[in-house]
Amino acid sequence: MKEIIKEIQQFRNDRGWGGNHDARNLAISISLEASELLEHFQWRSPEDAIAKDKQAIVDEMADVFIYLLQFSDVIGEDLISAAHAKMKRNAIKYPIPTKS
Amino acid sequence: MKEIIKEIQQFRNDRGWGGNHDARNLAISISLEASELLEHFQWRSPEDAIAKDKQAIVDEMADVFIYLLQFSDVIGEDLISAAHAKMKRNAIKYPIPTKS
Amino acid sequence: MKEIIKEIQQFRNDRGWGGNHDARNLAISISLEASELLEHFQWRSPEDAIAKDKQAIVDEMADVFIYLLQFSDVIGEDLISAAHAKMKRNAIKYPIPTKS
Amino acid sequence: MKEIIKEIQQFRNDRGWGGNHDARNLAISISLEASELLEHFQWRSPEDAIAKDKQAIVDEMADVFIYLLQFSDVIGEDLISAAHAKMKRNAIKYPIPTKS
Repeated sequence: MKEIIKEIQQFRNDRGWGGNHDARNLAISISLEASELLEHFQWRSPEDAIAKDKQAIVDEMADVFIYLLQFSDVIGEDLISAAHAKMKRNAIKYPIPTKS
Repeated sequence: MKEIIKEIQQFRNDRGWGGNHDARNLAISISLEASELLEHFQWRSPEDAIAKDKQAIVDEMADVFIYLLQFSDVIGEDLISAAHAKMKRNAIKYPIPTKS
Repeated sequence: MKEIIKEIQQFRNDRGWGGNHDARNLAISISLEASELLEHFQWRSPEDAIAKDKQAIVDEMADVFIYLLQFSDVIGEDLISAAHAKMKRNAIKYPIPTKS
Repeated sequence: MKEIIKEIQQFRNDRGWGGNHDARNLAISISLEASELLEHFQWRSPEDAIAKDKQAIVDEMADVFIYLLQFSDVIGEDLISAAHAKMKRNAIKYPIPTKS
């Protein structure tokens, strides 16, 4: 994952972009890309969407991830560590139901 | 990353969830969590948001990532591979400006 | 406002659309159109966005409204009455600060 | 509709709010409220959502509308006129299918 973060940083630096890539603007972009992903499923079943637009869906998924990586980089928090910590708290919040 | 995907799957299986975790419903959830992340920046500067709500922001970032991992798992496409492929195409789409 | 609702209904009926225009699908569409509106402001100041894309922005604003009208129609609740009721509760929730 | 716009303006003025209610921030808020509306339909059928959360759904619908009215006010474009104009163009873009 560090490799892909470096690749994104290099890409940005090569083009002189990133001047206004603060956490707020990146959060806006994550939300916009998430909507572009969802748009493929508007008025359609998941099966239908994937049958017709698989590659475009994979691309939009990648775009959400690319902005999410930049966001995690800007706020200085690792995505995987954050996910592990959240899952741990979810496990406490939602205990495994006991079988009767 | 495979480890965290397994952790999420285990969590879901332990609780008997996941019956309606299809790509469409997961895309809705990615979008909703992205909005909850953005909500921390509503009417506020990025500095102010992070100073006041850092932990909550990290948690929402993790939630977007957790749903994105489930989405990638359901459609059978690896997030990092998808991001690499997208970055490669971006590099062609947006060539490095030549210095004059 | 009743006139524009009728116009939308007529438009849909003329084209045989609307079969899956339930409240859930309309809520998805409201959210998607709201993102298309916000997209005009991605990486840009409000002044810059309006100077460059005024007509497109007005169109996206109209799209959010058109779906919102359909949503209100499907759940059988008038938009203006709902807004009045909400404003009344807001006024109680956020009292006018007394001048010192 | 002018009445409700005045009511919103009065509410804001009474509280000294509105300083940063520019079109960009309002577009963010429209998108966030649209997500809160959609959230009621997460993992649920439309029937189920309305049966359980009708009043909250009406309130979120009102919130989207209240921000949309403020947005239209800030950019100086009437919502209903914009919707009529958009519907007219939609009618040209999507002609009524001829019966065979």
